[in-house]
Amino acid sequence: MSLTPASLFDSSGSVRKEVFLRVYESIIEDELKDFEASYRIPSFALDQIKFCSDYNVPHGKLQRGTAVVECFCAFANLSTEALSEVDLRLACILGWCVEWLQAFFLVVDDIMDSSQTRRGRKCYYLLPKVGMNAINDSMILQSFIYRLLYKHFHKLDCYIKLVDIFQQVTFVTELGQLLDTGSQNATEDSFSLFTQENLERIYDYKTGNYTFYLPFALGLILAGKDDDETLKKVYSLCMELGRYFQAQDDYLDCFGDPEVTGKIGTDIEDNKCSWLIVNALLLCSPEQVETLRECYGKRDRSCVEQVKNIFRNVGLVERFEEFESRMYSTIREHITSLDNISKAPFLRILDSLYRRKK
Amino acid sequence: MSLTPASLFDSSGSVRKEVFLRVYESIIEDELKDFEASYRIPSFALDQIKFCSDYNVPHGKLQRGTAVVECFCAFANLSTEALSEVDLRLACILGWCVEWLQAFFLVVDDIMDSSQTRRGRKCYYLLPKVGMNAINDSMILQSFIYRLLYKHFHKLDCYIKLVDIFQQVTFVTELGQLLDTGSQNATEDSFSLFTQENLERIYDYKTGNYTFYLPFALGLILAGKDDDETLKKVYSLCMELGRYFQAQDDYLDCFGDPEVTGKIGTDIEDNKCSWLIVNALLLCSPEQVETLRECYGKRDRSCVEQVKNIFRNVGLVERFEEFESRMYSTIREHITSLDNISKAPFLRILDSLYRRKK
Repeated sequence: MSLTPASLFDSSGSVRKEVFLRVYESIIEDELKDFEASYRIPSFALDQIKFCSDYNVPHGKLQRGTAVVECFCAFANLSTEALSEVDLRLACILGWCVEWLQAFFLVVDDIMDSSQTRRGRKCYYLLPKVGMNAINDSMILQSFIYRLLYKHFHKLDCYIKLVDIFQQVTFVTELGQLLDTGSQNATEDSFSLFTQENLERIYDYKTGNYTFYLPFALGLILAGKDDDETLKKVYSLCMELGRYFQAQDDYLDCFGDPEVTGKIGTDIEDNKCSWLIVNALLLCSPEQVETLRECYGKRDRSCVEQVKNIFRNVGLVERFEEFESRMYSTIREHITSLDNISKAPFLRILDSLYRRKK
Repeated sequence: MSLTPASLFDSSGSVRKEVFLRVYESIIEDELKDFEASYRIPSFALDQIKFCSDYNVPHGKLQRGTAVVECFCAFANLSTEALSEVDLRLACILGWCVEWLQAFFLVVDDIMDSSQTRRGRKCYYLLPKVGMNAINDSMILQSFIYRLLYKHFHKLDCYIKLVDIFQQVTFVTELGQLLDTGSQNATEDSFSLFTQENLERIYDYKTGNYTFYLPFALGLILAGKDDDETLKKVYSLCMELGRYFQAQDDYLDCFGDPEVTGKIGTDIEDNKCSWLIVNALLLCSPEQVETLRECYGKRDRSCVEQVKNIFRNVGLVERFEEFESRMYSTIREHITSLDNISKAPFLRILDSLYRRKK
């Protein structure tokens, strides 16, 4: 399939999802041919790899993957028409690598959390004939990343940087997962872990790195604009975006409309270190803290209601609105002060998050 | 700690396990300090990472890890005394990377197989407070490999090769796992998968690559002797060693002495594609095949006994002895025909496998 700026971008400059998805189809077809040729593996195994990828990789919102393409184009500093087909394809492949990483994380997260549904369908590990083999399948999803990098980037100067950043971001995300479940499972005093510092660390490690920093950094690397100073600035901006995004997630988990968000939150029952509990503890009276200690982290409807009431009574709804406006202005300011790289992809993402309801 | 040829090797030229283990201690201490400094993670998380590594990494026979050190020294073509402390340490670190890889595989394999014990202790995922978080912990074990490579080899020319080979071998091992469980779970006709070709593919992918090829290839790379031709020869020799080793494993699973092997085999119950079933199918009468079809893969004592009886009656015990002698001679011959690199580590490993009872 040919890939031109005119086919890949719509009139507003966004990546056309259907074209991006066609790149996925060509990648997976090409990989399966390779598996057959290089490893002579029987068809049942090829089928399973294809099924696992198709089920888990291309079904999300593809925001991370398409962000790589947009960032590359913005940072390459060329007029859209001047982008070559080769570079566009490489950017799409990197975008899909991020989606493969995301799929890998989600498959194992769902097992660890005993989740039932994901993206409106049964979780992969719950499918008949899959079960715990989902773990090995998820590892194969992860390996796709490094196979694709090897195949398409090995001869380019940026190869090591690409491999290193995927490793690095994967590790940090695993640390984030460890901190997140650790706060949930701490037996003695999990309340002592409900601090702003801990919250931001979980946000940065579990979300900020792979959801925001990775696509931006890949765009910079592919465009050859990844000097240390730029990367550092982009990193701190991405952590702000991640904290903003994740605080919204926490807020919507409790106060969002399930009809709109599509999910029923369980952060309170799960004893999660969230924006709400951390901020509540800053505002509560000693009696309210006592009630939270009794009720937070319990799978009991009346406990959950008591927690929600305290959240409302101490003014968290208003506090969150203030937080949201303040964060939006601060991040916008920081974006404006960026020099030497395009501000457009940052602004587009920030605006897509502003006051989101889902 | 200082590391000299005299301290690391005993008089027979084997790596002293206790010295190799001290390198592990220094690696983990160093890494934890780094985690604290770079990621400011709370002590409960540091403790969990240390506990997971200590529980899973240094408790095996360390044959893969020490093989890296022995291979490097043999291939470097220097007198033992001429080996520098820096190079010895790098070889030990690579050896530990292989042990980390092995630990990663074993933790997830045990979950997928619902195993109860490993190396004489409870499987990691069965420990209280671990459970399914073992999956994220295993991913952290895998990340150790790339962190160690980055920290200790990033500035060396061999860095990309090292990263690539770990990725490559990891992927192939995952394919092996897929083929192995696929043969076990195939619903229609798993017997059609019990062929010599399929068996060898599982052996090569699931064992030969990471157990034999990886340590040898790492030794070659570190010694700068990894030209394509040598790697290719070493690869095919390592696949032979892997097939030899794994066929023994299959034989001992059924006919070994549990007092000596330390485990009670369940390959028959697990419907495994093993040396025994593949060879039995070449020798059985149609009636015997019928019985195997009825009894193989059933968790039933009398079925297992019927299968074992057929295995004995068609002469598999004798056939295996012939196979073992023939393989030993063939591999020895292939080793002897190696030029330009040391034969010693191949011979030592071959001899350590010959007629092993555990």
